[in-house]
Amino acid sequence: MKREEKHTRCPEKKCFNPGNLLYPLPAVMVTCGDMERSNIITVAWAGTVCSDPAMVSISIRPERYSHGIISSTGEFAVNLVTRKLIRATDLCGVISGRNTDKFRETGLTKAQAFKVSCPVIAESPVSIECRVQKIVKLGTHDMFLARVLCLDVSEAVIDRTGKFLLNSSGLAVYSHGEYFSLGEKLGSFGYSIRKKPKKKTDKKRRG
Amino acid sequence: MKREEKHTRCPEKKCFNPGNLLYPLPAVMVTCGDMERSNIITVAWAGTVCSDPAMVSISIRPERYSHGIISSTGEFAVNLVTRKLIRATDLCGVISGRNTDKFRETGLTKAQAFKVSCPVIAESPVSIECRVQKIVKLGTHDMFLARVLCLDVSEAVIDRTGKFLLNSSGLAVYSHGEYFSLGEKLGSFGYSIRKKPKKKTDKKRRG
Repeated sequence: MKREEKHTRCPEKKCFNPGNLLYPLPAVMVTCGDMERSNIITVAWAGTVCSDPAMVSISIRPERYSHGIISSTGEFAVNLVTRKLIRATDLCGVISGRNTDKFRETGLTKAQAFKVSCPVIAESPVSIECRVQKIVKLGTHDMFLARVLCLDVSEAVIDRTGKFLLNSSGLAVYSHGEYFSLGEKLGSFGYSIRKKPKKKTDKKRRG
Repeated sequence: MKREEKHTRCPEKKCFNPGNLLYPLPAVMVTCGDMERSNIITVAWAGTVCSDPAMVSISIRPERYSHGIISSTGEFAVNLVTRKLIRATDLCGVISGRNTDKFRETGLTKAQAFKVSCPVIAESPVSIECRVQKIVKLGTHDMFLARVLCLDVSEAVIDRTGKFLLNSSGLAVYSHGEYFSLGEKLGSFGYSIRKKPKKKTDKKRRG
């Protein structure tokens, strides 16, 4: 009986108060400011929100140092992170840029972007240059809705035909308090409806 | 010289037109409708946007069947996916619910939610029940900004002390056209500034 009371609706599941359990998420290093005064903030509340125009959103607490910078400049870059960059990624999420030069602290290379005034991280395989379109106040976090202006892609993740080899670049991911590398490939988009290639019938032997 | 021309700004990177390269992302199965007429749509443009109140966003093309349902009911559930659910996840992203009952097609179990009228997927380790607060038109996609009403967590991912063992549940992730399992654990939040536990000095031997 007690069991039935606990699981009135979905027998396999228990009901918990609202919280943040949508995982895994990207853990990205967001750069902002300009080439002289810049900052890096690690953000997990980040994602793509529109394909065309390409748009991303990042959510930042108003009390964070980068919040003021991005609100004022209207620009930022999202730098994807690989396993090699995870220690720096973690560090840029737990110390404040108010009293630390995070580029110096992490040893990351500050590189000039193509279209925005803020720097990008040279070691990141992909930097996504963005311009803020709207800031939406939500509660603990403000959401910065932004247009992607261009993509800075490392030559190391582009093959000879121009194809992005992003998934071979060692991308890392954040899930419920922990960082992980990508594991086994489980399939590619659309594989569930793709016809298996026909097996070659051994005509010669039959003929 | 040619090299310099190509790489005027960030020597390691080439500039590409705007596109969607923010990866890895969660690939989640979003359920909507009610217990009689429901649908499942796979969404990669999904993420957390606020910690408190807990809020998520999902972006859906207006022409998708689920767009109309969620716009009308104002409710949906985000069902996290594991490696076992990846084939179903892919299928729910490439076929339309207009002419297919996706629960029947995938064999997934339709379970009643706690607070919303739409079903959740029993096989998912976590279902996040949501109520839409705002629909933001962006372009190809509309963004549904939503409050998390409650979390339906599978007993299999809760230990005896009530801790969520989400990262042991086989979560999967979507990155640039491919699905992956989580790989090696690289660290936990804050590890970069955590002091290493002091080694026990071998006082006895010295003394």
